[in-house]
Amino acid sequence: MELGLVGLGKMGGNMRERIRRGGHTVIGYDRNPEVSDVASLEELVGRLSGPRVVWVMVPAGEATQQTIDELGELLSPGDLVVDGGNSRWNEDEKHAGELASKGIGFVDCGVSGGVWGLENGYALMYGGDTEHVAMVQPVFDALKPEGTFGAVHAGKVGAGHFAKMVHNGVEYAMMQAFAEGWELLEAADAVTDVREVFRSWQEGTVIRSWLLDLAVKALDDDEHLDKLRGIAKDSGEGRWTVEAAIDNGVPLPAITASLFARFSSQQEDSPQMKMIAALRNQFGGHAVEGAK
Amino acid sequence: MELGLVGLGKMGGNMRERIRRGGHTVIGYDRNPEVSDVASLEELVGRLSGPRVVWVMVPAGEATQQTIDELGELLSPGDLVVDGGNSRWNEDEKHAGELASKGIGFVDCGVSGGVWGLENGYALMYGGDTEHVAMVQPVFDALKPEGTFGAVHAGKVGAGHFAKMVHNGVEYAMMQAFAEGWELLEAADAVTDVREVFRSWQEGTVIRSWLLDLAVKALDDDEHLDKLRGIAKDSGEGRWTVEAAIDNGVPLPAITASLFARFSSQQEDSPQMKMIAALRNQFGGHAVEGAK
Amino acid sequence: MELGLVGLGKMGGNMRERIRRGGHTVIGYDRNPEVSDVASLEELVGRLSGPRVVWVMVPAGEATQQTIDELGELLSPGDLVVDGGNSRWNEDEKHAGELASKGIGFVDCGVSGGVWGLENGYALMYGGDTEHVAMVQPVFDALKPEGTFGAVHAGKVGAGHFAKMVHNGVEYAMMQAFAEGWELLEAADAVTDVREVFRSWQEGTVIRSWLLDLAVKALDDDEHLDKLRGIAKDSGEGRWTVEAAIDNGVPLPAITASLFARFSSQQEDSPQMKMIAALRNQFGGHAVEGAK
Amino acid sequence: MELGLVGLGKMGGNMRERIRRGGHTVIGYDRNPEVSDVASLEELVGRLSGPRVVWVMVPAGEATQQTIDELGELLSPGDLVVDGGNSRWNEDEKHAGELASKGIGFVDCGVSGGVWGLENGYALMYGGDTEHVAMVQPVFDALKPEGTFGAVHAGKVGAGHFAKMVHNGVEYAMMQAFAEGWELLEAADAVTDVREVFRSWQEGTVIRSWLLDLAVKALDDDEHLDKLRGIAKDSGEGRWTVEAAIDNGVPLPAITASLFARFSSQQEDSPQMKMIAALRNQFGGHAVEGAK
Repeated sequence: MELGLVGLGKMGGNMRERIRRGGHTVIGYDRNPEVSDVASLEELVGRLSGPRVVWVMVPAGEATQQTIDELGELLSPGDLVVDGGNSRWNEDEKHAGELASKGIGFVDCGVSGGVWGLENGYALMYGGDTEHVAMVQPVFDALKPEGTFGAVHAGKVGAGHFAKMVHNGVEYAMMQAFAEGWELLEAADAVTDVREVFRSWQEGTVIRSWLLDLAVKALDDDEHLDKLRGIAKDSGEGRWTVEAAIDNGVPLPAITASLFARFSSQQEDSPQMKMIAALRNQFGGHAVEGAK
Repeated sequence: MELGLVGLGKMGGNMRERIRRGGHTVIGYDRNPEVSDVASLEELVGRLSGPRVVWVMVPAGEATQQTIDELGELLSPGDLVVDGGNSRWNEDEKHAGELASKGIGFVDCGVSGGVWGLENGYALMYGGDTEHVAMVQPVFDALKPEGTFGAVHAGKVGAGHFAKMVHNGVEYAMMQAFAEGWELLEAADAVTDVREVFRSWQEGTVIRSWLLDLAVKALDDDEHLDKLRGIAKDSGEGRWTVEAAIDNGVPLPAITASLFARFSSQQEDSPQMKMIAALRNQFGGHAVEGAK
Repeated sequence: MELGLVGLGKMGGNMRERIRRGGHTVIGYDRNPEVSDVASLEELVGRLSGPRVVWVMVPAGEATQQTIDELGELLSPGDLVVDGGNSRWNEDEKHAGELASKGIGFVDCGVSGGVWGLENGYALMYGGDTEHVAMVQPVFDALKPEGTFGAVHAGKVGAGHFAKMVHNGVEYAMMQAFAEGWELLEAADAVTDVREVFRSWQEGTVIRSWLLDLAVKALDDDEHLDKLRGIAKDSGEGRWTVEAAIDNGVPLPAITASLFARFSSQQEDSPQMKMIAALRNQFGGHAVEGAK
Repeated sequence: MELGLVGLGKMGGNMRERIRRGGHTVIGYDRNPEVSDVASLEELVGRLSGPRVVWVMVPAGEATQQTIDELGELLSPGDLVVDGGNSRWNEDEKHAGELASKGIGFVDCGVSGGVWGLENGYALMYGGDTEHVAMVQPVFDALKPEGTFGAVHAGKVGAGHFAKMVHNGVEYAMMQAFAEGWELLEAADAVTDVREVFRSWQEGTVIRSWLLDLAVKALDDDEHLDKLRGIAKDSGEGRWTVEAAIDNGVPLPAITASLFARFSSQQEDSPQMKMIAALRNQFGGHAVEGAK
């Protein structure tokens, strides 16, 4: 089939390649002319035959909103927009409504795979009407990993991004699990070679997983991670997962702890710990350390 | 080689079978005569030719202590005891010392594998002197999974149980991660079929793992886990992991949250939440629910 | 001064009384004719001389929105609306804008005090323009506790509710602190009479506080809180505090733990713990407890 | 009465003064001759008439053990030792047993009060046999705050330190509660003057407390705590509280979060966050920050 693909960054560029390897025609547009196949969104739309399917793969928020707005102007009734970016799930219904008012369909799709997706395939979670999903199914089939799994029609519009968001929330806590275990092993003097313990865990254990394999790769590059600073960014999905949990009255202690650990790591100094130090000084005369 | 194996329960029985499949001679002893190969520990020791290796696979604590005490009486200098149970790592040094005073070697070995170990192999983490580990290496090779990984000499005596303990701590948080994600998906109405989302995650995602595969199996048995009550036991390793972290000043927020979630699940009613309800009533006149 | 007061429930009714004791004229309106001074909002507005000040003390959300909408129709330029309910802080700017378009001023005011406020006074945190605050200052002075503290002009519109929201977040964690300590004392057998320990803490300790005094009162009513069930409701402020923290990248581990503990207490059974039990069963053959 | 007091540091020195103000005779010993009343422990014991009461106020652990050992040699049957330091509660039974074998009584006493104790009195929680407590009661009465509260016979030997330990655990979470609230108010731009909000909370609110008063004092010294670094030490009691909870299967999410926040604050860089950064880099090619 023919696909328009907007956004050819780290993710989009590799996805174009994988879809093409699947035998489909992809016309890509990016603001960066060096990677773009066409000069404008208008040209991209003009080059597709109807009913057109355009996959949006740009940063969530303003960039996605603007692209969807422009496509709403350029596309025709019966066409379809897929938002494959990291939009917040409750944006999807709004986008779907805006496009539906012009007769244009909408599918949201959460995409997991990172830099490994080109070779291994991308895990896909999508939401939308069955007939809309059917229009883009050949592309889903090209993108997904070989084998039985890796793609799911998760429900109505928004379900794809919601499922991907929860995936990322789970990912936060799994990463935190390995990180905590690693720090404890490094801190205690019981185990001689922590990296070899991690390596051994890759088979036969309850915790064998792709993230563990990656941890071993990371430790092979830098045994004690001395080259790194302990700063971990967070993206929207982790935050939204906790917010969705609060909306639903669901306790998420481990995922939230993982998010907060990242918040703390991003701070040069901890205001709340200044207050603790100040209080200890007030009631106990405990020495405090002055600001650098 | 020849191995004495004490304890033929769920774990020990399968391990005997796997070691035998590896071509070794195993003489097993269990208090239950139906599964035991010999009538007594004394007979077991008598049937082995020296230097003897006896693997202890009984419950941690008193049962292990008693078995090691008895073996200390029965074995001879140059023999070796392996503690493959779930002993606390700081018991190992004590056991090693007691045996060393009689010229008997000691190796501790954390074993992961559960009911799957017989077919897939057991992950092994062991600690002790190199010469002692060498004495039992053929058995380790028979027990471990096929392939490159799954066994590690983690360090001196105690290192094996320490590594296994941390493994279990990581396991707690990984299980909690999936459990939280599952509850959120079930609670929100965004996703139509939560089980299919879990199934799809098995390939191409960041969170693909053996535990995820098991979650899908569990959901295939009972889609919404309606047949279960939300009560999760905990074993010593989770508790010891947190204690080891406290000893080392290491923050373990996700692992500890996972342990506490299990504690809460084991309570018929929550005393601390009674106090919260009582306080709300005191200052706000908020209605409280009476005891059943 | 003259005040219109809308909402004469548990809070509003007592506040009317305290303001009157302060020498002011209060005309109260409530849908319940038994407590209302007037038959309608229209009558209330008609009975006030301009510039009118009307204090809204109704449930946050729809009821507050509707009351503000109606007052927007009934009041005149130069009049003032005070929202003393538990509105979310980011609703305030919207309400202020809607009223400002009609020349009507707006002040938001977080009120703390519960059933004790009538006698002890209400702590007040308010936000809005200085000239608007000045219009209602005499009422603030009547409501606040005797003494130096208990009232603050926290900033622009929304600041009052924001400050009150954070107050409640802090309150959640303080309550949780005492609740956890109490449960631990009750669970361990070290201390013979937990209530007397709590009682003794009321003077000379670092943790002496009004909440501790209330805890002692509660224990005097019911020494082991046997009459209660361990279920703790939560109101909007706790949830909003965590959401505001996430918006600002601020880690709130203790406050969030307190919120999640309440969520858990509200569940008949824990879905996430079902998943943990299911996974333990899958990999370890651990017995699980069937649903009741 | 007559009291021997061993340890005249920040706490002990002020306690000597307060007990003397209460009309009692205190003979103090400290290794520092500038503050000591006698040249040696031997001299101190010699100067007391029997039955002697000696209060030990030295650092927990080795120093306390050594002092108790020496007193065991120097004292006579019928004498009494009070451990007023921060010993771990399960040390008490051991100390009591050692002394009991020589006919010497033992009382453990947790003391709260810090630098304020001299003027305000010290909160006391003590454990031991009734007849032993009676021997030291006059000193307890002199040390405790004026008024009804502030002292409690918490139970048998160990109960005093256990109660004090839990007091400190509660203190950790209360401090954390205020610290989190303060950081959120400072981070968000809703509130203009955070210090004034804190000040106002001192009356009429649910969270009014001595710790809040201290927070206001600290902010009066340094409005944004710019002079401090966000590093908070922890003492044994916080750690032991969590360990006691684990022993009893009691979930302590807020207290433990408070302890872990302190652990994190003590780290120059976070090993676990290095692992998170490494994993993000592995799967997503996310940029990481190199070590300084």
